[in-house]
Amino acid sequence: MSWHKLYTDRVNNMSPSIIQEMRDLVSYPGTVSFTAGEPSQELFPIEGLKAAFEKVLNGYPELLSYASPAGDPVLRSWISSWLKQRDYVEKDPGPDRILLTNGSQAALGILALMFFQKGTAIVVEKPSYTEAMLTFRKEECTLLSVDMDNEGPLPDDFEKLAREQKPSFFYTIPTFQNPSGITTSEERKKEILEIAERYGIRIIEDDPYRELWYDSCPPATYISLSSGSSNIIYLGSFSKIIAPGLRCGFALLPEEIMGKAVDLRVLMEIGLSSLTQRALFEFLVSVDLDSYLGSIRDVYRNRRDKMIYAMKNYFEPESLLFEVPMGGFFIWGRLPGIDCTDFARFAALEEKVGAIPGSGFFDDPGDGREFLRFSFAQVDGDTSWEGVLRMSRALEKYKTIK
Amino acid sequence: MSWHKLYTDRVNNMSPSIIQEMRDLVSYPGTVSFTAGEPSQELFPIEGLKAAFEKVLNGYPELLSYASPAGDPVLRSWISSWLKQRDYVEKDPGPDRILLTNGSQAALGILALMFFQKGTAIVVEKPSYTEAMLTFRKEECTLLSVDMDNEGPLPDDFEKLAREQKPSFFYTIPTFQNPSGITTSEERKKEILEIAERYGIRIIEDDPYRELWYDSCPPATYISLSSGSSNIIYLGSFSKIIAPGLRCGFALLPEEIMGKAVDLRVLMEIGLSSLTQRALFEFLVSVDLDSYLGSIRDVYRNRRDKMIYAMKNYFEPESLLFEVPMGGFFIWGRLPGIDCTDFARFAALEEKVGAIPGSGFFDDPGDGREFLRFSFAQVDGDTSWEGVLRMSRALEKYKTIK
Repeated sequence: MSWHKLYTDRVNNMSPSIIQEMRDLVSYPGTVSFTAGEPSQELFPIEGLKAAFEKVLNGYPELLSYASPAGDPVLRSWISSWLKQRDYVEKDPGPDRILLTNGSQAALGILALMFFQKGTAIVVEKPSYTEAMLTFRKEECTLLSVDMDNEGPLPDDFEKLAREQKPSFFYTIPTFQNPSGITTSEERKKEILEIAERYGIRIIEDDPYRELWYDSCPPATYISLSSGSSNIIYLGSFSKIIAPGLRCGFALLPEEIMGKAVDLRVLMEIGLSSLTQRALFEFLVSVDLDSYLGSIRDVYRNRRDKMIYAMKNYFEPESLLFEVPMGGFFIWGRLPGIDCTDFARFAALEEKVGAIPGSGFFDDPGDGREFLRFSFAQVDGDTSWEGVLRMSRALEKYKTIK
Repeated sequence: MSWHKLYTDRVNNMSPSIIQEMRDLVSYPGTVSFTAGEPSQELFPIEGLKAAFEKVLNGYPELLSYASPAGDPVLRSWISSWLKQRDYVEKDPGPDRILLTNGSQAALGILALMFFQKGTAIVVEKPSYTEAMLTFRKEECTLLSVDMDNEGPLPDDFEKLAREQKPSFFYTIPTFQNPSGITTSEERKKEILEIAERYGIRIIEDDPYRELWYDSCPPATYISLSSGSSNIIYLGSFSKIIAPGLRCGFALLPEEIMGKAVDLRVLMEIGLSSLTQRALFEFLVSVDLDSYLGSIRDVYRNRRDKMIYAMKNYFEPESLLFEVPMGGFFIWGRLPGIDCTDFARFAALEEKVGAIPGSGFFDDPGDGREFLRFSFAQVDGDTSWEGVLRMSRALEKYKTIK
């Protein structure tokens, strides 16, 4: 008998991510890639991390043992205070509500196992993050998409879904959203919160880009606006501001569910590496974090501006529509009349330039037909100038032959 | 509405592990603990790991990016060759069949999600590893226990379960088993393999203690005896021989399921830390592994011998029954007529000495009533002498008052 016959429904419900496919397509030498939603390698604080690992291995060899299943208590305390200091939350939640995770995706992974099963209805933004939707969908839950404008999810649409479909959860990426770059305004958050509260909808606030603002601080978080409601789970990550290879994200959980989350962690993997978590802590306390983050913001702001400038230079305004994102990594382009799934493959093969087609970011792929996600995170000014030129050339060619 | 109402069946099927509870009970200062099934901290190769992390951070900063979801290809290649060199397998399986995991427990975690659901029947050894059984049980599968003798699982009993219950999987810890210390002989493996083949039962061979032999090399693995059958998944780990805090285990998977395992990895957590994995690789190639392992074996052999000597000295032969394990960390004691769950708590509180009661290692806890698992891994000779003395005193007291 084939192994395939033994798969759980979950395995059969998985579908491959188009992001992974595009990554392969842009791996040819000489390709300019706007696909990677991850930090630029030359910004990794190597020296600081080296010192941090050395310090931890010298001073705390016990961290090579099995760890506290919730994660290193020292880093959890630091995160807890930091959340308060930076106004992510109204008051310090304490380390006992912080679960460290193997990146934010692992927080979604564990939450999906805890709360999502056949019939669970979850509102997602339209568009939303591909891997989150795939993670939820593998558990056979029902995704409901809420329309967005430049202020965030539309309250009327959200209220209609709430009333008619009785969702249990709303999954949102409120700040510099992946893929749309949209930041949900404070006013809009209040409206959404009021509806969520009225219908008993839990919110999963996935906020990995928050510190990557280039113009002004982003609006208050849902969790800080909810005045201590225990209906919100807040997810953060060090992947975008320090390095994804440390695999360190965190979930701020309601006290009520922390015990079960930890029990599940034990059964899934016993625990994570406290060595890495403590090294991250040592790094965080060894730098002037404001100036460190400031210097990273400077680099990415510059990349964003160069990319926007190139786009305005090479594309007719009506052939590529986009808004300037106020932070994060993504410019969300719309190419009216173009099938971007087809076009993205064409551009990669013909002109060696890559971007992610929009279809994967929608529950109904057809809705993403005209969209492309461009990431400027890893592309310096000169390279993005060249890349945008290639993209515009590809579009001209594509229009001629189609 | 309470969050509890939103839990999946999985969460409601979880029960806490008695091992965790006992760990808390032995955390009082001055307690001698035989509870920890984990390596002794003073054996961690700190200097070697420090050099390895430094080398990796200096030479391969790209490992701080997102990684290959299956794990660092360099470490996977090394493991693949090593499996062949050490005769774990008949021929080098190649890195494409190696999935790195966040410890062996994470391999069980991912396999449970891939293959186990309501109604899946799995044979486990009687006794078996607590956290594995809890991991399987949370997916609502049916556990079937096969009786063991000192050579391993009893073929007649296995065959009866196979015929009557049609299990899909057999989960085995063949070498220096946790908790019983039993090593399944080569002859017995062949008998089990023949039955498994006949009834189409897949084998999950969980083998983390294999390198910790103290008298002679352990018998051949199931996977090497199966002449290339793709019905066996082999799990290994560096937690017991290097350090658990590196969180590095691996699964040797049939080619057929590798793609889906990687897809699930992506949705659960994107990937693991290649930085840590490559540092482990650098450490492994920087040492004389035979002499490194030899020195570790010397320490544990000595601890085992001292503990056995103390047990023979302080206990009447009929009051504590045990076999001498040929490797690993565990001595599996039977105290005829004693309820060891109750006694273990008594011993911890009254005499400050800890061991793990046997009930958690059986599908039916009642079957483990008279058993205690003693781990000598973290206990040097003098301490174990004192610990065994306390345990014998506790038993005398306990017999008086009960």
